Amino acid sequence: MNFLEEKIVKEGIVKEGNVLKVDNFLNHQMDIELFNEMGREWKKRFEGKNINKILTIEASGIGIACIAAQHFNVPVVFAKKSKSINLEGEMYTAEVESFTHKNKNQVIVAKKFLNENDRVLLIDDFLANGCALQGLIQIVQSAGATVEGIGIAIEKGFQTGGKIIRNLGYQLESLAIVDAMNAETGEILFREE
Amino acid sequence: MNFLEEKIVKEGIVKEGNVLKVDNFLNHQMDIELFNEMGREWKKRFEGKNINKILTIEASGIGIACIAAQHFNVPVVFAKKSKSINLEGEMYTAEVESFTHKNKNQVIVAKKFLNENDRVLLIDDFLANGCALQGLIQIVQSAGATVEGIGIAIEKGFQTGGKIIRNLGYQLESLAIVDAMNAETGEILFREE
Repeated sequence: MNFLEEKIVKEGIVKEGNVLKVDNFLNHQMDIELFNEMGREWKKRFEGKNINKILTIEASGIGIACIAAQHFNVPVVFAKKSKSINLEGEMYTAEVESFTHKNKNQVIVAKKFLNENDRVLLIDDFLANGCALQGLIQIVQSAGATVEGIGIAIEKGFQTGGKIIRNLGYQLESLAIVDAMNAETGEILFREE
Repeated sequence: MNFLEEKIVKEGIVKEGNVLKVDNFLNHQMDIELFNEMGREWKKRFEGKNINKILTIEASGIGIACIAAQHFNVPVVFAKKSKSINLEGEMYTAEVESFTHKNKNQVIVAKKFLNENDRVLLIDDFLANGCALQGLIQIVQSAGATVEGIGIAIEKGFQTGGKIIRNLGYQLESLAIVDAMNAETGEILFREE
């Protein structure tokens, strides 16, 4: 088991309905040193990639992306989920469906923050059905920019998101892939690499 | 002018309706090295405070809080703005009104992440009328925890939030206080310290 899998086993809680609660360290309380380990690991896995920008989506991707950005020495852009009065000007938009909240959101990035010269690393906390990620990919493509890679903390390997993204040819680096979990026993089965 | 005021003058845009757009470096695209300077400055200003946790609010506070946390060596908790199915269990809630979005939100923190031993630094990107901040203070008090200080990137000094918070006796450290701005000329007047 790697450091993230160990943390999940130690502090994650499996709930009915294939819910994995990791709010103790990932998406409510945030363990910054863990995020730094994740950043170091992605830097290693994306070695040789000429990444100049990280793109994530609010809210729980932001902290991970900012800490990871220190290992790549690049700025972070976070996609917004609803239109704000401060977000005028031309925008890229994509519609995505949330797994957690069971609603649809417009994912929005101001055009001035992505252009055809950008080589983008996408970062997010979870990958399940992959809708949010597909929205981010759509936005990068709309900008004529390049997706150099995708870094995910926890992938739910029993859902289709990861397979779809890999089938599309992207380098997807999920630091922990959960292939099965059992709410009764609390057991978590990770994919071996 | 300090480093943040210089950045605001260089890259901020004054819009009608007392809107200051700083999405180039603060709340859409994020300048991580700038966030590090902000963290260093807060560490200096809160020297001697025995801070063990940073509390912020989604979404634009998260990146700043995570980078600042590295200077305090503490975890970050971000308050959520809407109820999620993953957020079960007991929660502290406060109702706050957004200046930007002109709607009301429930601010939510799981009870397990705040207790009476916590000495909390509140971090956010903007302080205007201070409703979000009042919600965070309310939550810290509900937990019986202590607000050791409040770090804000940009305070709109011509709105009432900062005055209210200082009148309540909190150590509020805003790195840039805008006392006036002019959408026609683009001029920004900072409060001298």
